[in-house]
Amino acid sequence: MTTTLITGGTVVTATGRSKADVLIDGETIVAVLEPGSRLLGTDLPASVDRVIDATGKYVIPGGIDAHTHMELPFGGTAASDTFETGTRAAAWGGTTTIIDFAVQTYGQRVFDGLATWHQKAAGNCAIDYAFHQIIGDVNADSLQAMDGLLAEGVSSFKLFMAYPGVFYSDDAQILRAMQKSADTGLITMMHAENGPAIDVLVEQLLAQGKTDPYYHGVARAWQMEEEATHRAIMIANLTGAPLYVVHVSARQAVEQLAAARDNGQNVFGETCPQYLYLSLEENLGAPGFEGAKWVCSTPLRSRAEGHQDHMWQSLRTNDIQMVSTDHCPFCMKGQKDLGLGNFSKIPNGIGSVEHRMDLLYQGVVNGRITLERWVEITSTTPARMFGLYGKKGVIQPGADGDIVIYDPNGHTSIGYEKTHHMNMDHSAWEGYEIDGHVDTVLSRGKVVIDHNEYLGAKGDGQFVKRGLSQYLI
Amino acid sequence: MTTTLITGGTVVTATGRSKADVLIDGETIVAVLEPGSRLLGTDLPASVDRVIDATGKYVIPGGIDAHTHMELPFGGTAASDTFETGTRAAAWGGTTTIIDFAVQTYGQRVFDGLATWHQKAAGNCAIDYAFHQIIGDVNADSLQAMDGLLAEGVSSFKLFMAYPGVFYSDDAQILRAMQKSADTGLITMMHAENGPAIDVLVEQLLAQGKTDPYYHGVARAWQMEEEATHRAIMIANLTGAPLYVVHVSARQAVEQLAAARDNGQNVFGETCPQYLYLSLEENLGAPGFEGAKWVCSTPLRSRAEGHQDHMWQSLRTNDIQMVSTDHCPFCMKGQKDLGLGNFSKIPNGIGSVEHRMDLLYQGVVNGRITLERWVEITSTTPARMFGLYGKKGVIQPGADGDIVIYDPNGHTSIGYEKTHHMNMDHSAWEGYEIDGHVDTVLSRGKVVIDHNEYLGAKGDGQFVKRGLSQYLI
Amino acid sequence: MTTTLITGGTVVTATGRSKADVLIDGETIVAVLEPGSRLLGTDLPASVDRVIDATGKYVIPGGIDAHTHMELPFGGTAASDTFETGTRAAAWGGTTTIIDFAVQTYGQRVFDGLATWHQKAAGNCAIDYAFHQIIGDVNADSLQAMDGLLAEGVSSFKLFMAYPGVFYSDDAQILRAMQKSADTGLITMMHAENGPAIDVLVEQLLAQGKTDPYYHGVARAWQMEEEATHRAIMIANLTGAPLYVVHVSARQAVEQLAAARDNGQNVFGETCPQYLYLSLEENLGAPGFEGAKWVCSTPLRSRAEGHQDHMWQSLRTNDIQMVSTDHCPFCMKGQKDLGLGNFSKIPNGIGSVEHRMDLLYQGVVNGRITLERWVEITSTTPARMFGLYGKKGVIQPGADGDIVIYDPNGHTSIGYEKTHHMNMDHSAWEGYEIDGHVDTVLSRGKVVIDHNEYLGAKGDGQFVKRGLSQYLI
Amino acid sequence: MTTTLITGGTVVTATGRSKADVLIDGETIVAVLEPGSRLLGTDLPASVDRVIDATGKYVIPGGIDAHTHMELPFGGTAASDTFETGTRAAAWGGTTTIIDFAVQTYGQRVFDGLATWHQKAAGNCAIDYAFHQIIGDVNADSLQAMDGLLAEGVSSFKLFMAYPGVFYSDDAQILRAMQKSADTGLITMMHAENGPAIDVLVEQLLAQGKTDPYYHGVARAWQMEEEATHRAIMIANLTGAPLYVVHVSARQAVEQLAAARDNGQNVFGETCPQYLYLSLEENLGAPGFEGAKWVCSTPLRSRAEGHQDHMWQSLRTNDIQMVSTDHCPFCMKGQKDLGLGNFSKIPNGIGSVEHRMDLLYQGVVNGRITLERWVEITSTTPARMFGLYGKKGVIQPGADGDIVIYDPNGHTSIGYEKTHHMNMDHSAWEGYEIDGHVDTVLSRGKVVIDHNEYLGAKGDGQFVKRGLSQYLI
Repeated sequence: MTTTLITGGTVVTATGRSKADVLIDGETIVAVLEPGSRLLGTDLPASVDRVIDATGKYVIPGGIDAHTHMELPFGGTAASDTFETGTRAAAWGGTTTIIDFAVQTYGQRVFDGLATWHQKAAGNCAIDYAFHQIIGDVNADSLQAMDGLLAEGVSSFKLFMAYPGVFYSDDAQILRAMQKSADTGLITMMHAENGPAIDVLVEQLLAQGKTDPYYHGVARAWQMEEEATHRAIMIANLTGAPLYVVHVSARQAVEQLAAARDNGQNVFGETCPQYLYLSLEENLGAPGFEGAKWVCSTPLRSRAEGHQDHMWQSLRTNDIQMVSTDHCPFCMKGQKDLGLGNFSKIPNGIGSVEHRMDLLYQGVVNGRITLERWVEITSTTPARMFGLYGKKGVIQPGADGDIVIYDPNGHTSIGYEKTHHMNMDHSAWEGYEIDGHVDTVLSRGKVVIDHNEYLGAKGDGQFVKRGLSQYLI
Repeated sequence: MTTTLITGGTVVTATGRSKADVLIDGETIVAVLEPGSRLLGTDLPASVDRVIDATGKYVIPGGIDAHTHMELPFGGTAASDTFETGTRAAAWGGTTTIIDFAVQTYGQRVFDGLATWHQKAAGNCAIDYAFHQIIGDVNADSLQAMDGLLAEGVSSFKLFMAYPGVFYSDDAQILRAMQKSADTGLITMMHAENGPAIDVLVEQLLAQGKTDPYYHGVARAWQMEEEATHRAIMIANLTGAPLYVVHVSARQAVEQLAAARDNGQNVFGETCPQYLYLSLEENLGAPGFEGAKWVCSTPLRSRAEGHQDHMWQSLRTNDIQMVSTDHCPFCMKGQKDLGLGNFSKIPNGIGSVEHRMDLLYQGVVNGRITLERWVEITSTTPARMFGLYGKKGVIQPGADGDIVIYDPNGHTSIGYEKTHHMNMDHSAWEGYEIDGHVDTVLSRGKVVIDHNEYLGAKGDGQFVKRGLSQYLI
Repeated sequence: MTTTLITGGTVVTATGRSKADVLIDGETIVAVLEPGSRLLGTDLPASVDRVIDATGKYVIPGGIDAHTHMELPFGGTAASDTFETGTRAAAWGGTTTIIDFAVQTYGQRVFDGLATWHQKAAGNCAIDYAFHQIIGDVNADSLQAMDGLLAEGVSSFKLFMAYPGVFYSDDAQILRAMQKSADTGLITMMHAENGPAIDVLVEQLLAQGKTDPYYHGVARAWQMEEEATHRAIMIANLTGAPLYVVHVSARQAVEQLAAARDNGQNVFGETCPQYLYLSLEENLGAPGFEGAKWVCSTPLRSRAEGHQDHMWQSLRTNDIQMVSTDHCPFCMKGQKDLGLGNFSKIPNGIGSVEHRMDLLYQGVVNGRITLERWVEITSTTPARMFGLYGKKGVIQPGADGDIVIYDPNGHTSIGYEKTHHMNMDHSAWEGYEIDGHVDTVLSRGKVVIDHNEYLGAKGDGQFVKRGLSQYLI
Repeated sequence: MTTTLITGGTVVTATGRSKADVLIDGETIVAVLEPGSRLLGTDLPASVDRVIDATGKYVIPGGIDAHTHMELPFGGTAASDTFETGTRAAAWGGTTTIIDFAVQTYGQRVFDGLATWHQKAAGNCAIDYAFHQIIGDVNADSLQAMDGLLAEGVSSFKLFMAYPGVFYSDDAQILRAMQKSADTGLITMMHAENGPAIDVLVEQLLAQGKTDPYYHGVARAWQMEEEATHRAIMIANLTGAPLYVVHVSARQAVEQLAAARDNGQNVFGETCPQYLYLSLEENLGAPGFEGAKWVCSTPLRSRAEGHQDHMWQSLRTNDIQMVSTDHCPFCMKGQKDLGLGNFSKIPNGIGSVEHRMDLLYQGVVNGRITLERWVEITSTTPARMFGLYGKKGVIQPGADGDIVIYDPNGHTSIGYEKTHHMNMDHSAWEGYEIDGHVDTVLSRGKVVIDHNEYLGAKGDGQFVKRGLSQYLI
């Protein structure tokens, strides 16, 4: 096995930073040592197979993107990144683990859905991967199946309050699933938007000839996110289920989460880079059909209403605990353009899996969050939240050698012709400039990215079984 | 220099736990290693001077008690623990650092006060110590002096909204001091009780012949704590000062802190073991004069009103960030009894410096908080909050070798005849049983407590200069 | 036409009280005069047909019960009071107007439902009556019909978030109906309980053998009322509809209403006497099947949780604006007993139309509300809320001669054998003692109750067309 | 005695409106009658001395301005309106009662202060007047004197949390006075601004050369109003005192009041026209020294922060219960100009007593409030709040003949050369146009204003003794 020593860097954790060297033996971190690493007389640099100089750089646990949708069938097409292309792009951006969503469709058995996703991913991934389980049909059979998910390494499931006729669960189904969540310890993940009401608004807007992408944001009003968030919280309150609300975008929804948390309820919230940087006016409202690039649900919110600033604040106050991407890319040509003349036909999704670590680091540069908080919300908390702690999200003995060496003096220009590796024909982040750079990425001890070169291979990534959330123990 | 290897234990941090060995070289941690510690062929156990077996035990960073008052003159007497006796008791209980309060009295110069406290402490302490600065007289001279505090390693100062005629600052003084806090980055610590109003209630109760210790709690009504907390928050809001409210006891005060924090303000709150366990009815209301043992300010609160349960919840929700003791012991005989027949003459204070780590660990056993949260609120957060991070509150290379080996299978019976080492003639915690035990304590690499034996010496502890709070960078 | 002069009493309005005489000419109040009534030389007492001496008594506008269900088909039976028996009982208790609910059942046309209710009531009522319209099937046809309701004197409609398969509207239907509400000015009345979720709980409790009436209250948890209340508020917020939540029982639901109102939204709440006086523990939890008497929805709440005290407070703070009865009586024998062995089969409803004015007056005696507030919440606000102002709810020239002379020195013992006139085989209010008495009741100038004698006749009462709510102008 | 009949108008009350005639006999209203007034055969118009035709107009109870400061000594000068000029101007604007503030200065006896104010007012007023008592020196003597205030017809007293060295009470004094308030039922009125802190900000701004009127608004930051409001609420909560906060201007202060009220506490708030219409930016920030016209405390608030819109909303939601003027006029020349080069020397005050009814009526025209709410907040609530109900604030038999006939088709142009009758050399409301007009004003049955003619005389107005607040009974 290869031994690797990362020397001279600043190891950053969720709670602080220190100058330290990191020793990796094979796939596993075996020691964190004082700089210089001449331990008890041993000349470690001379003893290892490989020394990586991280002087002047941050040494951080690899990013964990807890919300991706590779190859997801949606609206008659499918997300354009395969597990191969998507995980490779993730690696380029300093993410070393994704948690994707296996889907049980309506009428399907849960474990058949899970098996399908294993087939899609197995042997194709550049980095490690795990699964949440979408329960698209809560019934007696699927409720029973949920008892077996933990043994499969799947410790969380997702329900939808939106998309009637597709993934939608009604409140009776949600109640039953949350009872199961409380019994098993599986986290309930919730897409919290009032789908039935939104669909009325969509129909009315289209009938009025309001067909542009902008109206996607109008139809999915913040009231409908706030409402569903509150509803999920109250059913969770009744059942005792731990609740994790995905892709929170409205400040009012955050306020609901904050109130529940102050009240002692086990409720968590995730936001995404798009809700921190992009807006209804500037992006969804772009001229012509360009806004389609940013059609996702929950939608981008109005900057005039202050959602973005409040969301950054929520990351500081811990009213929002972590940042995932909801990576679900579609090309403009042949995919997004299905919705020309009808915004409701535009496949919902934005591709960001490659840029999350950079975009959030820019939040550090801009004074929005601290360096430690950057590590916490992109890696340590995702690992703790979803049962990966000890192996992922930390730099400590016994953990996987998933490490990013990040250069605060580097620079990254995001753009389709520049740093883009996702399988899309455009970038939703075109023109974003980052005052930092992912120099080197190790995945289980193997260098997969090194100074703008991809050294990994399809199949490097393995399926990771997850345990219960650390927050629930 | 001595090298020490702690093997076989479970290292617990604020964010997780892992099996790991810890290597200490002299006074400093130099490595955290995979268990077994046969690194790159080196047999570490064989190479070090001392091996400590921590199998089956928790290895945690030494406790930091950020609120003590050794030898504090108060009400015509002085706290009964000297720096010598108090810090030794702290060591017995797994606390390896205290932050005590140097006092500028009315009319005195700030640095004269600080110098006095250095004289009290120097050469007498069993463990490391640092100082906050009480500003008892905010005036042009003391405001100027505050510019020099950081250079002295004092990065926080405390004001009192209570005790008119002694430590009290009026709102004009508080405003000026908080402006200084905002300018310098020094944290404003606040004793938040409306002293002028409380003193009226005290006078009225005494006039009505209500002289028992119980009325101490009646006079210091929760409304007066809530009010002062809110007032401090708003002056901090106006000035931009970071605010840390000490010894929070009322749930309504916590709600004020939570609201300010949700609103993005840099506001923090500390509670103490007495507000988690003890109550107005059971303790202050004990028969005869016994309640005097528990006279402290803010006072113990009514259990019927639910303050204690809410305070535990606040530790989970992080609406309260850390737990200190406000250690300020007085003997019943010759001290507390000054207030026989007049509760307002009872010296205010409870001795807990020895028991904080145990009492909070019992919260883990009782399911109130997680093991990680225990470490966070007793050590990691105090270090981050008060500028000790990197040296204290963590187990990582470069940090001081301040480590506690805690046995979850041990047992501790708290009581005056049992585990008590504080210089008091009674225990405020008599009869408390803890399902765990402080086995071994290392202070800067030296074993000072080992299996119920004190191995340290007066003067082991050094003054520690503190930097700015990590939360404010 | 008969002229009547009420002399010597204290006229009480929503804003104050004054000694004044009231002159009625035929059916209409024509003057309010200084006591003595010898106006400009005219000896009024000598000039009128009838003089009623109200010395020492309160002269108040007749009660308006804005929520009754006479003859309502429910659960295979029907409410036991007909319009004849129910309105006569109302008159006995000082209520001179009811607003009952016409029902559009699923699949039925709205105006057919309304016509059916007109047939039930016409010629049968002892006092005036009006209708709200239940919309049990929101669809294109019923939405169109709603445009015509105001012309029929029906200025409010009711939706149900409970009772799936019966009256239930889903969120898409609620959204569409609320848009209509915003367009037309009709008030949306809402039964706010999450029916689909509750039905799961009911099924589970029954499966566990928990079949007693008590479990009706367990199944209909406060979380499900709070949730639905919030949901209704948010859809109202989105659409701009005025919202009136019926029979609020949970304090948490009140808090949702209060928050929305503080935020400037047109949201109102009604409670009922049962939520002020009765409880889950004492009533629903009565031994054997007796609790069935108090099975109604929303259910009686736990006194230990403080709902009742908070509801009285809400009447003071105007977070709840008025009190109706939700009068929906069922006999124990042959009706309530349908649910022996299965609480979900117990017809939902309590009979209170006769006792509302007395029960609320007792709140005045007990210091819960002021005398003026009593008049406001039982008469003036109902009239303003539901478009009857100017004719009902006030004592002023031009208003109908609907007047109650209430004796604060009288006494009323409520009980089946005592003052009961409702068509039931028991009283839900057995044993309640009231420190006051309805002495005389005038309905449109006619004395219908006089010192425990009924002087009215079937058919005295007329249908009253209502205009838009005064609150919405 | 003269008899007067007002015919053909629309009588507007706090709860509704109706076509009715009003009959006044001498000074007192004796009947409210159906229009036409041919009561029982009597031809009333032919029988009375005077008939006033109010066809097409509103007949409302005369305005009550519960906050004026005639001839108040302040900052080395005195408010420029005497009781003669100020009350005459009030009559011009439809106000028929003022409640002015008698002052106990520091060191003075309370009743000596009250006597002084009686001397100023007696024989000089155009309309009725009453007094609140300012307690400028809370001590044993003044606390005892407060027991006698109610007998003098003074049922409320005012404290100041601002103006240290002048009117300021510290929290100990406030606590003692509020205990007296709770014991006696006298309402505690509070000027809620943190004076000691504000004075520091004033000193600092002046030291920085920021001397313009604009900085008056900067120094008196909203945080200092919110803070003091909360503090007053909590001391009231502790003591049980009813609390009325004067001249509320900050939305955050309103939120504190709303929270306390939702919590069931007897807390009330008053705002003034200037906080509804004027702003920091547009008025205090006017070029040069012109902003001095609008220097008052609390100050005008920033429109960008939304205080004005929120204040209008608060009038709708009843989080603010009434509108007074805080009339305290100063001329620019010789008075306001004392503060040239030092904003802190500008006498604090705006003259509005003449325009309150018009300015608030414009709120009706603009859709901010209803017609009924206009009457409620300007007349009915002030009468109920301050113990005048039955005599003032209503049109009912037995009430004083204080009536305004307001023409909704008239027009009023406010301006120094136009409608201005206050003793000032400018108008703070120059250029405001009102879509309505005060046609006729009756004070105790006497017409004092009739179609732009003043028919009253110095000394018409009488001192009115007040009882306890109706809200507290």
